[in-house]
Amino acid sequence: MPGEDKSASDSSTPILDNINSPADVRALSLDELEQLSHEIRHEILAIASEFGGHLAPHLGVVELTLALHHAYDTERDQIVWDVGHQCYAHKFITGRRDQMKTIRQKDGLSGYPKRSESSYDAFGVGHSSTSISAALGMAVARDRMGDSRKAIAVIGDGAITAGMAWEALAHAGHLGSDLLVVLNDNEMSISKNVGALSAYFNRLITGGLYNRARQDINQILKHSLPENLTKAAQKLEHSVKGLITPGTIFEELGFKYVGPVDGNCVHTLSECLENIKNIKGPVFFHVVTKKGKGYMPAEEDPLQYHGVKAFDIKTGEFLGGGGPKVPTFTDAFAEAFIEAAEEDPRVVGITAAMPTGTGLSKAEKLFPDRIYDVGICEQHAVTFAAGLAAMNMKPVCAIYSTFLQRGYDQYLHDVCMQNLPVTFAVDRAGAVGEDSPTQQGAFDLAFLRGVPNATVIAPRDDVDTKAMIRWAIDSGKPVAVRYARSKAPTIGDAEGRDISKAETLREGADGVFVGLGPQLAACLEAAETLAGEGLDIGVIDARWVKPVDAEMLDSVVDKPIVTVEENSIIGGFGSAVLEHYERTGQLEGVRLHMCGFPDEWVPHMTRDEQVAEIQLDAESLAEAMRAHLGAKKAAKSGT
Amino acid sequence: MPGEDKSASDSSTPILDNINSPADVRALSLDELEQLSHEIRHEILAIASEFGGHLAPHLGVVELTLALHHAYDTERDQIVWDVGHQCYAHKFITGRRDQMKTIRQKDGLSGYPKRSESSYDAFGVGHSSTSISAALGMAVARDRMGDSRKAIAVIGDGAITAGMAWEALAHAGHLGSDLLVVLNDNEMSISKNVGALSAYFNRLITGGLYNRARQDINQILKHSLPENLTKAAQKLEHSVKGLITPGTIFEELGFKYVGPVDGNCVHTLSECLENIKNIKGPVFFHVVTKKGKGYMPAEEDPLQYHGVKAFDIKTGEFLGGGGPKVPTFTDAFAEAFIEAAEEDPRVVGITAAMPTGTGLSKAEKLFPDRIYDVGICEQHAVTFAAGLAAMNMKPVCAIYSTFLQRGYDQYLHDVCMQNLPVTFAVDRAGAVGEDSPTQQGAFDLAFLRGVPNATVIAPRDDVDTKAMIRWAIDSGKPVAVRYARSKAPTIGDAEGRDISKAETLREGADGVFVGLGPQLAACLEAAETLAGEGLDIGVIDARWVKPVDAEMLDSVVDKPIVTVEENSIIGGFGSAVLEHYERTGQLEGVRLHMCGFPDEWVPHMTRDEQVAEIQLDAESLAEAMRAHLGAKKAAKSGT
Repeated sequence: MPGEDKSASDSSTPILDNINSPADVRALSLDELEQLSHEIRHEILAIASEFGGHLAPHLGVVELTLALHHAYDTERDQIVWDVGHQCYAHKFITGRRDQMKTIRQKDGLSGYPKRSESSYDAFGVGHSSTSISAALGMAVARDRMGDSRKAIAVIGDGAITAGMAWEALAHAGHLGSDLLVVLNDNEMSISKNVGALSAYFNRLITGGLYNRARQDINQILKHSLPENLTKAAQKLEHSVKGLITPGTIFEELGFKYVGPVDGNCVHTLSECLENIKNIKGPVFFHVVTKKGKGYMPAEEDPLQYHGVKAFDIKTGEFLGGGGPKVPTFTDAFAEAFIEAAEEDPRVVGITAAMPTGTGLSKAEKLFPDRIYDVGICEQHAVTFAAGLAAMNMKPVCAIYSTFLQRGYDQYLHDVCMQNLPVTFAVDRAGAVGEDSPTQQGAFDLAFLRGVPNATVIAPRDDVDTKAMIRWAIDSGKPVAVRYARSKAPTIGDAEGRDISKAETLREGADGVFVGLGPQLAACLEAAETLAGEGLDIGVIDARWVKPVDAEMLDSVVDKPIVTVEENSIIGGFGSAVLEHYERTGQLEGVRLHMCGFPDEWVPHMTRDEQVAEIQLDAESLAEAMRAHLGAKKAAKSGT
Repeated sequence: MPGEDKSASDSSTPILDNINSPADVRALSLDELEQLSHEIRHEILAIASEFGGHLAPHLGVVELTLALHHAYDTERDQIVWDVGHQCYAHKFITGRRDQMKTIRQKDGLSGYPKRSESSYDAFGVGHSSTSISAALGMAVARDRMGDSRKAIAVIGDGAITAGMAWEALAHAGHLGSDLLVVLNDNEMSISKNVGALSAYFNRLITGGLYNRARQDINQILKHSLPENLTKAAQKLEHSVKGLITPGTIFEELGFKYVGPVDGNCVHTLSECLENIKNIKGPVFFHVVTKKGKGYMPAEEDPLQYHGVKAFDIKTGEFLGGGGPKVPTFTDAFAEAFIEAAEEDPRVVGITAAMPTGTGLSKAEKLFPDRIYDVGICEQHAVTFAAGLAAMNMKPVCAIYSTFLQRGYDQYLHDVCMQNLPVTFAVDRAGAVGEDSPTQQGAFDLAFLRGVPNATVIAPRDDVDTKAMIRWAIDSGKPVAVRYARSKAPTIGDAEGRDISKAETLREGADGVFVGLGPQLAACLEAAETLAGEGLDIGVIDARWVKPVDAEMLDSVVDKPIVTVEENSIIGGFGSAVLEHYERTGQLEGVRLHMCGFPDEWVPHMTRDEQVAEIQLDAESLAEAMRAHLGAKKAAKSGT
């Protein structure tokens, strides 16, 4: 088969078939371990090509995963996988092979490590750069309780650039506990890696640091020493190399540095790990892996194959995608950003390692020097934007809802408190589908609107998105525009939009949906259904979460209201509506029911399934309105 | 005067009297600059001894402040002061000398840099470690707009340990823009500095790195080279020193490193800065200053004099403090923590560089190895706690409300999502008094309660605090206990408390205060006042913010309710009450009014003034209840 390497094309899995737990892995010889890596790689390919999901990261760490389980007693020792999108090999050998085909699907395995799924998943992950902190906590717990378990963090070269990882490294070096940090350096995080640390890794790998030291020494030797001291000079050079080269930074922080070594060779890895097991104190093990290893299309374009939809395993071509292309919210944002940037040189874009996901990569092609990818550094991203805004630039921070949680304090303290004009393009706000609950964008309306000076708005479709982004950039104040991970087909009239206020999409005397975002389509469908039952239900796009559109809310105060939001109902838009009625003395008599994310973690499934699960689909909304209209003043729950 | 050094005892300020702006500073000779530093130090002492506030940090940076304003055109160049508790000298010479006696008082100058106060305050601060991000944003803005202003960040050795500073350093090194980062290294942040980076600074300063390299080289030379090559060896040693010593980490990140130099010598500083001005690209300037410089008591005990109340300038003795000592919430927390730690070896404490402020330093004296001070690293602190909890420890994270904003994502993603038993002791929740609005603890109820699996409770006094902390530690789940920066006198009966539910402190038929925290005392006082007017008003301590005490809320649904919380009313406890009534179908007919922080930034003043300002004092609460009872269903605000 073209596209696959030879070993991966072997369809039988004789070794894997006998692996029921990591104990079986430990019983293998290194040659068998290598063979097992090919078998698992083949299985990962089969699953990803059929169901989609992350691919290239999983392929890259197969050997590393096997070597770790081979060297350590992972019934007791704790491995924390950073981010977690490299855990398929781990799941294959920890008793979950027969469920792998359910991965990322409703009621199936999670695409990430999850404590409730397996005792081998030492720590749940999803967001980046938590692994060293968590593993250090485990190491300290072990020391305190007089235990002997090992604690291991496996972290990528992208994730380690986050400040949080640095905080943990410094603390680990300070404490000196036994801890193994494995840097899985694939020379490419999700997008191209940025930052000075990444350049540092490159120099470690390519020997740049060593070469620099060597040149300096040669120059000294040339000028200072008699020519016949070659041998002494060579010895000196060797020693100076030891002083200066790989690991300087990590050794300064208190780690013993081992590496860089070939992370796709089980023999090398095993040899190193067997030695490392006996080293006291914190160890930094630098392994270099190839993302997409063993599948040629992914090796050649690991970015394209980082996360995939179903594809033809032979050709690498992606399947589906027929029918007319409907733009997503992300597309609409990118278009608006590009227009604004074309008109005003002060418009710049900031992303925290997600240029493609946020749509900013499209703008980067046109304005390569105006898009700042700061790496996985949301804290810095937000305050960097504040600094730009303080000098009259018009920065746009494009960050997913779930990752903006990392920049909450900076949003509050640096942007909103100083009323600096930063636009936040908050993508993936709401249900995110197959990804883990860790990635749900269910909290932003609550944490963003709670801050004085904040403006928070939500577009229902492509037209609104463009208009809101353009307005926000020129508004001269902090504005968050939050939108879903979904297509954004136009809802209602595209012409004559006035995004400065709410919009009535359908009049209705018996009750009204007051909603936000793409769920307005479901509200309209629900109203249509209810019309067939003789109920005259209105639909209003609220658009404004902070401030709310007071005039609109006052106009519907006498009607039964159902609020609809793709956000937690704890402190979200529905609460904002209640707070408005309280503030204006209109609360008594208000009949309001809230629909949104419940106060619980919503598991992975498709986005459509999730929307139905949290009862924001048309059918559920119709039922919510029926129940709300039908409800008498309920009996008190308590007395 | 004993205690002061000779120069500071000169009461005349001939040079300072002629300083109206930084332009006047630039016109001075270096000797005059030095004299000015003595005059300003004397004034700072006078102010701090009379009004209290930060002291030691301000004293340490007088020369650095003057040298910066002397070397740079600070009408145009931007200085960002990290944290900001070192800005008094800066304020003295930027046109605010005549207002310095109003500092930290109501309607007076802020104790921190503030953009709205002066054009010389380039960026508002309060939280640590934002300066490099902000200054880098300014540098990039300058480059984009073709301007020539300099951007300067002044950051302490404590603040630079935060991950956010590391993120910014890495990005700055990557971009290569002209940027000056001044590390103000006083070998002691607020408390003793922790972490591997701090150890690194110490080695830089003491020459440890250099000495290590020197030893290694000497050993090589001894074994490898003829004895008569002394001179060549010396040259070599010199060069190797250049390769290895000061600044390695920062140079690896792309900075040019200058230092360490004496940061209390204007001559040295000026000479360096004049050179640095001409260096292209990012420069890291390492200066070593003495905290408390020039005032002997503060030099000898800089921790004691970091922040002070009024004191006798001659003796250094603190004034006031008469009368019986009433314990604070912090004291009660410390007591409960110590009791729990005595009983269970699994109880450990975690602080992010605030052992004294949080009260954990008391426990540290008893259990020195069970208190983990992770430095100014809230992100790591929270996930480190999660790692401990995952291994069955009972970690207590003691973090101020305002700083927990930095650990919001970790609270959500690492602790609550995995339902790990971490106790959060959330101190300084509510009004914080003379500190800046940046430090207000006005948001925690909203951001903490929004997360599934979270439990959020609030003690009204010392007795509740102890009981709640003890309960939380053994609860087996994530619990946040939030309490105010205030004394915690016992309210109501100390015996027979049941913190598992709300408590009725006073019965009343006409209306009810449902409150939280120490404001319950004000509620009782207001009820007493209203009783004198013939109104029978009850008072209930709600205690539980999440989950709310449903039985209690159901029992008062028919009465006029005034909710009282020291938190923003946007998404806070009042909203939690409304959400309960909505969820249980009881909303219609509810008469509720919320009292709490308004949706605006509350400026600095005393805590008592602030409580009155946000209308949580007894008089305001009585008036709120009167108005609420008197209000007819208000006219709609809109139609």
